[in-house]
Amino acid sequence: MAKDKKMVEQITSMEVDFAKWYTDVVKKADLIDYSSVKGCMIIRPYGYAIWENIQKLLDAKFKKTGVENIYMPMFIPESLLQKEKDHVEGFAPEVAWVTHGGSEPLTERLCVRPTSETLFCEHYANIIRSYRDLPKLYNQWCSVVRWEKTTRPFLRSREFLWQEGHTMHATAEDAENETLQMLNVYADFFEKDLGIPVLKGRKTDKEKFAGANATYTVEALMHDGKALQGGTSHNFGDGFAKAFNIQYLDKDNTLKYCHQTSWGVSTRIIGAIIMTHGDDSGLVLPPQVAPIQVVVVPCAQHKPGVIEKATEIYEKVSTFARAKIDVSDNSPGWKYAEYEMKGVPLRLEIGPRDIEANQCVLVRRDNGEKLVASLDELDTVIPKLLCDITENLYNKAYENRKNRTYTETELDSFIKTASEKSGYIRAHWCGDEACEVKLKELAEVTSRCLPFGEQGKKGKCIVCGKETDKLVYWGKAY
Amino acid sequence: MAKDKKMVEQITSMEVDFAKWYTDVVKKADLIDYSSVKGCMIIRPYGYAIWENIQKLLDAKFKKTGVENIYMPMFIPESLLQKEKDHVEGFAPEVAWVTHGGSEPLTERLCVRPTSETLFCEHYANIIRSYRDLPKLYNQWCSVVRWEKTTRPFLRSREFLWQEGHTMHATAEDAENETLQMLNVYADFFEKDLGIPVLKGRKTDKEKFAGANATYTVEALMHDGKALQGGTSHNFGDGFAKAFNIQYLDKDNTLKYCHQTSWGVSTRIIGAIIMTHGDDSGLVLPPQVAPIQVVVVPCAQHKPGVIEKATEIYEKVSTFARAKIDVSDNSPGWKYAEYEMKGVPLRLEIGPRDIEANQCVLVRRDNGEKLVASLDELDTVIPKLLCDITENLYNKAYENRKNRTYTETELDSFIKTASEKSGYIRAHWCGDEACEVKLKELAEVTSRCLPFGEQGKKGKCIVCGKETDKLVYWGKAY
Repeated sequence: MAKDKKMVEQITSMEVDFAKWYTDVVKKADLIDYSSVKGCMIIRPYGYAIWENIQKLLDAKFKKTGVENIYMPMFIPESLLQKEKDHVEGFAPEVAWVTHGGSEPLTERLCVRPTSETLFCEHYANIIRSYRDLPKLYNQWCSVVRWEKTTRPFLRSREFLWQEGHTMHATAEDAENETLQMLNVYADFFEKDLGIPVLKGRKTDKEKFAGANATYTVEALMHDGKALQGGTSHNFGDGFAKAFNIQYLDKDNTLKYCHQTSWGVSTRIIGAIIMTHGDDSGLVLPPQVAPIQVVVVPCAQHKPGVIEKATEIYEKVSTFARAKIDVSDNSPGWKYAEYEMKGVPLRLEIGPRDIEANQCVLVRRDNGEKLVASLDELDTVIPKLLCDITENLYNKAYENRKNRTYTETELDSFIKTASEKSGYIRAHWCGDEACEVKLKELAEVTSRCLPFGEQGKKGKCIVCGKETDKLVYWGKAY
Repeated sequence: MAKDKKMVEQITSMEVDFAKWYTDVVKKADLIDYSSVKGCMIIRPYGYAIWENIQKLLDAKFKKTGVENIYMPMFIPESLLQKEKDHVEGFAPEVAWVTHGGSEPLTERLCVRPTSETLFCEHYANIIRSYRDLPKLYNQWCSVVRWEKTTRPFLRSREFLWQEGHTMHATAEDAENETLQMLNVYADFFEKDLGIPVLKGRKTDKEKFAGANATYTVEALMHDGKALQGGTSHNFGDGFAKAFNIQYLDKDNTLKYCHQTSWGVSTRIIGAIIMTHGDDSGLVLPPQVAPIQVVVVPCAQHKPGVIEKATEIYEKVSTFARAKIDVSDNSPGWKYAEYEMKGVPLRLEIGPRDIEANQCVLVRRDNGEKLVASLDELDTVIPKLLCDITENLYNKAYENRKNRTYTETELDSFIKTASEKSGYIRAHWCGDEACEVKLKELAEVTSRCLPFGEQGKKGKCIVCGKETDKLVYWGKAY
């Protein structure tokens, strides 16, 4: 083994310290690095390639529904941010302020966008005239800034990458349909592409977005039992439209306010992938977003013909999967550990005896299973295995969620469970914010969402005992 | 025609007022809009789709040479920006400063990146240890901010989108090769994909990048005879490496400084496309980056079967080109003008008589030529036409440059030409910055570049008369 190459170093075990395990993985898998910019992260090539794959998949799904991309300025004048009351209250405390351009003080300070509702609204007010201009379905891929006190890579940082969709519609019904359509796009992406099961549901008023009528969410449960909000879709009604005077002339020749939605996901998704699928050997990536889907590792590569054959196989695999070959002078054992750390879904091992037998060994990252495959059938075996891996990842995560979902009907028992277990607690809630606040004080949990499909069944509010048909999943969240 | 739809409004003629023509085109072709953020622009969906196509093409070319994408924080602490002397002098006067996070003043102010050399250097110093780690070929797609006094859409704005490549190499030779390789990638892209002929050459020391040893450029000539710097590639030598202590252990077991390059293009490219190919009917887009390559316009669409047949053709064309069909109730004349304004390379007209004859009419945006094509051969005719259009655009632009390139050997004649003509003036230069500055005073031109292939021939410096083998293209520039 080359002396000047890093060893694959041990990472903290998940069971010992989940937070430390997480930090070890993001560093050792080369996803991020720190810089002298406090609270911000460098997304390294391997991490950024995951984000590029996420973007490619989601962008295609958005465009299929008619969404167009746009780019707005990154600055928002203070007076514009203040135009919608709830919105400014939600965001003003955590924005970064630009006060000088060159050596001159600005006449009005600008914030670096924490989100771009206000800019979109101003633009929509400029360009929407008639019912013929609707709907307008715009999305933006960009970075946003929120001045957080405590930060963690991907999960909470002062700057992060995201997409923000902002759409305008003629009717309240159209806006609600769009809100739910995009929530479903997110849910499908999490479940089918990332192998992460999600709860789809509505947020309580306390937890909804500043300025929204309703916020819908896809919530995922991490390996340690803490919840993570994966994506949100908001119905704004006509609140912003009224504040920004966004009106259209309808067919009946009267002026009406537009109805608006917004929806977004961010680089948090990468945090969700790590904490849902990862293990004590490092990252485990769902094949759809893995920068490398198959790594080819030659064994006894000094023997004649091995590297040549391995290269031939690598080139073949590259025609149907994202592949890499490692012919460096590191030992096979080092390479195995390295690509396990990096979460590569499949390892293809090929040595002299395999070559003789016209076969290779395929090793799955998700369960360690080894399979011998004929070199003639790789183009069918590998794509199938990659699908199987996503499915298995989904099933394992689903199982974890099932095992970590508790149902409570009595407050004392709820508090006991919340203190002893980590996961979701299902419990009825009357809809009163006072009960929600009280539960947070008593059990240190927040409402994650009111899942669709679990509403309408009678029960008693876990706090006040009042009869209700609202059921909430409660938990601790990232 | 629908009453509530905008008319295709007249734009100013290029000959009357080129600057006004430009502003009219960017607005009327729906490329940009203004907002309350002074000096910044909104890139609207049609403009952003051009940028997405540019990104897709360039990103694939970069990756083919081994480049990886990365994301750096958008902020740079003041002390980090100051680490390389020339660099800070070049940029500090035009950066935007963040001084507050939320309601608290920052202990050190941060600038919004005008470019990211300093962050890349800091990161490279962290991750480069040995010759085995080299080269490192990183690129970033992002937005940057420079606090300009006067701004124009795409050409000069306080925020713009770009890519910045930053690479590290073991030797000076490797760095020079990379610098020139990326310059060639840009030149190929401009000439083959955008149909814009460029001069490849070196910048004078006066015009080079703050902190670079050498800056290479691709320079394009706009329709009005003014030059536009299309992209630059810089060889930094080991200056930054010494300032940031970026060293590697070489094979001979000694520590050596890395050699560095950087290279970038921005949304200015869209300005170059507009001003190279556009005409008095609006935008003319090169097919490779056109969001819509073919627009299908049914004629007499109220007649039975016309919309159905047009839709069938549209679907067929969509399998090999980016296509759109317009079945709105606007008149064909309105539609023709609209898609001419938007620079769509090909218009496909289809009416009842065409359908009977199993044909359609194809109209080229670049030269107005009409062709009748059989509906059975569209999949060969259209791709060929799209190639022909790029070639013709290139030839027209090349002709314009040829007609606007003047050669001068006497100072008086140079000054006369500079005052009467608009274009490049070829003239020898001794290499002395004093002569360059004097020429700017006397003739109001700057050195655009020393084109490769035109150096080494003896002549006399246009200012001081000293013998030299350096030849410069001078001009007025955007």
